[in-house]
Amino acid sequence: VIRVGIVGATGYVGSELFRILHQHPSVTIEILVSDIDAGKIFSEIYPHFNGVANYQIKRTEELDNYSLDCVFLALPHGVSMEFVKEKGSSKYKIIDMSGDFRLKSASLYEKWYNQQHIAKEFLTKAVYGLPEIFRTQIRRSKLIANPGCYATSTILSLAPLIKNNVIQPQDIIVDAKSGTTGAGVKLSKSTHFSETFGNFSAYSLSNHRHTPEMQSVLKQISSKNVKMLFTPHLLPIDRGILTTIYTKPVKKISAELLREMYLNFYHQEHFVRIINQPPNVKNVRGSNYCDIFVTYDIRTNNILTISAIDNLIKGAAGQAVQNMNILFNLIESTALNQLPLYP
Amino acid sequence: VIRVGIVGATGYVGSELFRILHQHPSVTIEILVSDIDAGKIFSEIYPHFNGVANYQIKRTEELDNYSLDCVFLALPHGVSMEFVKEKGSSKYKIIDMSGDFRLKSASLYEKWYNQQHIAKEFLTKAVYGLPEIFRTQIRRSKLIANPGCYATSTILSLAPLIKNNVIQPQDIIVDAKSGTTGAGVKLSKSTHFSETFGNFSAYSLSNHRHTPEMQSVLKQISSKNVKMLFTPHLLPIDRGILTTIYTKPVKKISAELLREMYLNFYHQEHFVRIINQPPNVKNVRGSNYCDIFVTYDIRTNNILTISAIDNLIKGAAGQAVQNMNILFNLIESTALNQLPLYP
Amino acid sequence: VIRVGIVGATGYVGSELFRILHQHPSVTIEILVSDIDAGKIFSEIYPHFNGVANYQIKRTEELDNYSLDCVFLALPHGVSMEFVKEKGSSKYKIIDMSGDFRLKSASLYEKWYNQQHIAKEFLTKAVYGLPEIFRTQIRRSKLIANPGCYATSTILSLAPLIKNNVIQPQDIIVDAKSGTTGAGVKLSKSTHFSETFGNFSAYSLSNHRHTPEMQSVLKQISSKNVKMLFTPHLLPIDRGILTTIYTKPVKKISAELLREMYLNFYHQEHFVRIINQPPNVKNVRGSNYCDIFVTYDIRTNNILTISAIDNLIKGAAGQAVQNMNILFNLIESTALNQLPLYP
Amino acid sequence: VIRVGIVGATGYVGSELFRILHQHPSVTIEILVSDIDAGKIFSEIYPHFNGVANYQIKRTEELDNYSLDCVFLALPHGVSMEFVKEKGSSKYKIIDMSGDFRLKSASLYEKWYNQQHIAKEFLTKAVYGLPEIFRTQIRRSKLIANPGCYATSTILSLAPLIKNNVIQPQDIIVDAKSGTTGAGVKLSKSTHFSETFGNFSAYSLSNHRHTPEMQSVLKQISSKNVKMLFTPHLLPIDRGILTTIYTKPVKKISAELLREMYLNFYHQEHFVRIINQPPNVKNVRGSNYCDIFVTYDIRTNNILTISAIDNLIKGAAGQAVQNMNILFNLIESTALNQLPLYP
Repeated sequence: VIRVGIVGATGYVGSELFRILHQHPSVTIEILVSDIDAGKIFSEIYPHFNGVANYQIKRTEELDNYSLDCVFLALPHGVSMEFVKEKGSSKYKIIDMSGDFRLKSASLYEKWYNQQHIAKEFLTKAVYGLPEIFRTQIRRSKLIANPGCYATSTILSLAPLIKNNVIQPQDIIVDAKSGTTGAGVKLSKSTHFSETFGNFSAYSLSNHRHTPEMQSVLKQISSKNVKMLFTPHLLPIDRGILTTIYTKPVKKISAELLREMYLNFYHQEHFVRIINQPPNVKNVRGSNYCDIFVTYDIRTNNILTISAIDNLIKGAAGQAVQNMNILFNLIESTALNQLPLYP
Repeated sequence: VIRVGIVGATGYVGSELFRILHQHPSVTIEILVSDIDAGKIFSEIYPHFNGVANYQIKRTEELDNYSLDCVFLALPHGVSMEFVKEKGSSKYKIIDMSGDFRLKSASLYEKWYNQQHIAKEFLTKAVYGLPEIFRTQIRRSKLIANPGCYATSTILSLAPLIKNNVIQPQDIIVDAKSGTTGAGVKLSKSTHFSETFGNFSAYSLSNHRHTPEMQSVLKQISSKNVKMLFTPHLLPIDRGILTTIYTKPVKKISAELLREMYLNFYHQEHFVRIINQPPNVKNVRGSNYCDIFVTYDIRTNNILTISAIDNLIKGAAGQAVQNMNILFNLIESTALNQLPLYP
Repeated sequence: VIRVGIVGATGYVGSELFRILHQHPSVTIEILVSDIDAGKIFSEIYPHFNGVANYQIKRTEELDNYSLDCVFLALPHGVSMEFVKEKGSSKYKIIDMSGDFRLKSASLYEKWYNQQHIAKEFLTKAVYGLPEIFRTQIRRSKLIANPGCYATSTILSLAPLIKNNVIQPQDIIVDAKSGTTGAGVKLSKSTHFSETFGNFSAYSLSNHRHTPEMQSVLKQISSKNVKMLFTPHLLPIDRGILTTIYTKPVKKISAELLREMYLNFYHQEHFVRIINQPPNVKNVRGSNYCDIFVTYDIRTNNILTISAIDNLIKGAAGQAVQNMNILFNLIESTALNQLPLYP
Repeated sequence: VIRVGIVGATGYVGSELFRILHQHPSVTIEILVSDIDAGKIFSEIYPHFNGVANYQIKRTEELDNYSLDCVFLALPHGVSMEFVKEKGSSKYKIIDMSGDFRLKSASLYEKWYNQQHIAKEFLTKAVYGLPEIFRTQIRRSKLIANPGCYATSTILSLAPLIKNNVIQPQDIIVDAKSGTTGAGVKLSKSTHFSETFGNFSAYSLSNHRHTPEMQSVLKQISSKNVKMLFTPHLLPIDRGILTTIYTKPVKKISAELLREMYLNFYHQEHFVRIINQPPNVKNVRGSNYCDIFVTYDIRTNNILTISAIDNLIKGAAGQAVQNMNILFNLIESTALNQLPLYP
């Protein structure tokens, strides 16, 4: 049995981790940590867990009193690296959900995050936790940098194209749309119900922090410099990311060839579904699936790739558990087979 | 292993039945039936099941080619009784989701449904499938009348009061609010997105068909004539029912006593959670839970009971599987332990 | 021309006041006040007013530099009475949107608001600003206590019944549902989009502050002690209140008689529409209408009254302008004829 | 006074036309036409107009009994050209909301609409009713082809760039998102509330009918062949279009220069607001505004233009009234100054 702790348990990603891990047959959740909510009962913060479990939230320092095999960090960037700096050499494996260890270069981190990196020595040890691409490296790692939600949907959408040298790697338009849970549990004007309801807008134009993450991971995959314009939008829904991607082919291509290429690329992947209609976010709600559709517009010579994920699951907590399953040699889909909740 | 068929598989209740039964360790789904959609592939109608299963929809008459232990009827009222009239004496057990066998009296049925009952001989054989109240009778039955969604939330809310003779049984106000999936997959102006979005209204004033169902089941429980005014409202959400119930105590009471009474009444029930804050529908979304809160307003001398369910699960498909588990002597919560999807 | 100031201009009621008054042919908006947002440009806070007007927000003390005929207070309760205490004897008329002057009794105020009343001398001077009921008194007043949103819909729904002695005045159930703008611009967990979206729940059971307001105004109308149980619910929409009211007749009644009684009661009222179908909130969105439907359930002997308003307009800013029109002898509907925005 | 008729009055665009025209000081609405709903009372179909007006819907043939100055056609494409073929030479001016007269070329029409054009003789007489671009031609015309909703937001966004030769005219990506009222009053699975709520997806990939409309109008403006990939998405809201456009500069440019260019281009336009933050759809809800934001991403060398409109107003009924005001030499903004309804 794998003994786990969740640090930052009282955010949305933390509570989703709890939901999934609680149903995992090989896991016991030993401790839930949140310095802010320490002392409270978990099911009072999240009453949907009433009657399910009766955890009292602990402080970070109490973590050392537990024998743990795996610790999930559902912390804001900046806070994660403090934790890793201090406890990164503990016996347990760490799966970090923040952006702190996703970039290999501290200077790139400092440029996009406007913040010094204080745990640089761990940057090279961390493996980017996108199982469909880096499964082998994940298996051998002790520190997993779990991908961002936008990054998951974008990289999975582009990997077949970029790996197979089908597109111009420096002319990529990513127009992404996310539900509000991506912005977390923290109150803000832009996620105040009266403002967001019936509304829609773009944000973080030109400077969203997932941009360098996506570019450098795609470079790792293809050994080519990748440049993309990434434009996120805020959808007035709770869960779900839909990403629409426009790329230019460098060779003769067709919709059929593209579809076949994607089917081949992912044919052994349980959680990636190559579908033959444009995806929608509700078809993956509550599941660990990433649905991808690809086509070619012959008139304008554009490849169009559209993908959908549940940002809290394949975009965060579900993918983290998938990584844990790999780290501990379990069947990769364990506890992740919950079907989408539709309608 | 239990071999099941789902008739009316392409409606919302049918697809939820599939979702739950597909994950049931003791069930094989042998056949999906829909006369309207026969010939189609199930995952083309419901792409959230892409990659999960590959069923072709069959016609009702093909049912006889299969050896089945249990058949779920997710059919409109009127159609269900035709099926039962014809096949009600088959070897398999039948769990009917329609209103056709919920009332014991054919004349009551004919009054509220404006339609003749053509399978009266089965009315007395049918057991009302509310496990928390009728578990013993369900176990021995061959034909289950699965309760309506509003009825489930209302009866579970009122049962402790009525059974313990705490309230005036003829002065009950039920103000209920349901998401749109309760109205099914059928297109209508009142569930056209542009009309329903940002909107809210009451409907079926004084004449909703769950009224006689609730009254007669509560009479069964209490041996008293029960009279309630039931006012349903349409919520601009997909899933969830919240029911607010106002009753008059016949004896001295307090919020604490009421809470204790409810805790006692349901203390062995896995799926009923007596909570100490007003419930909300998202805390049960995707689960088989019914959350109930009770209090007493001393100033106006009213008991206030509020409950929440997911109308497609505890209000329909989940409860049907709960009934199947009882019928086949399985652990009652098998395949029903999925935790609520929040937020 | 009427020179007005809006104090608390940067809340939702304040911005709606601006929207309506900006289009008023007899009004000039002299000053917008908010101590918190002083110095900012109004259209930067509310970009929907871009290109419309270019006000800089001022501090309360700057109000004295302007010659004003009418001041609207869109302030939280507690803050309003400080303003009135200090400036209540100024030349201008005051229309207060808070709860501070709606109750005639300071002790009642202190009981329900948990706070001392510091401007008691103005309580008797204030007139409750519900034009359909208190038009004559409003005309002569200098201080208007603009009704609460729930109170507006409830009192307008009950006035014909209570005035005509049709119901038991101490057995009233009010089950109300409001959109989130009723909770204002202030961030809170219960109006965080991820929490509220797809959700629904009751709140403030037994202790909502509009209860004594409604009871005492209805007593003013009828000279009878009125007792009601008021249960508000939070709708996952931005605007709109739907109120469902259950009362017991004291005499023989019918749906037709009731309807006629309501038609008579409001036959000269421009903003009250007695309709013959259950109302919905979108049919009044963006307008100053209050739609009311009344019926009688003979089976259970209940009168059912349902009403709908836009909480920010007839429930707040629109009604305030209606009061201003009365105070200054203008046609009562001036600037308030905007038709509902549907769908 | 201008005597108008609305043909197709019972759709969403027809009802919005009524709402706006009813408040127009120089207009009398003489007749509302709908062959399907003939005989019904308008306010029974649209109860938000209760108490406002009491029209009985007429059949098309009854139109000839009225002396009219202007007829609005809110009809599906295909039906409009039948009307124009038959009555296009009447005395009254016609403002057609369908796609039937927006393309100058019958063969282009037939290719994208899969349908023969039966009123070709009117194609050259029709003027494309986008006032900000074609005001002069509109003034002299008798038949206005009112632009599509997507086309309005896209053309207004691109006109400054294309007119000033700033971009490559054949490398344009338009990623647009529309609320459901754009799909009209007709029931369909894709606008069934249970399906659309909490959902988001792309549709009509590569083949949406507004594509040739936008391309040919932009060619008219610039004398250059224009090629764009247009990808519409369905937003789970009722009203609003947000359009995100990616173009490639052909000369050195900056965000500041672009902004200035847009300000100049539209500096006399009442309904186009060049704003300095990304727009959102709620800031224009209920109004005739088009909000536009432009910027330049130096890293990837893309120009990013984002615009927002209310699809039923600036995208349909409001723009039609703007055209009518031009046709009859009224102040162009008459009846169109309603401010946005926010929040």
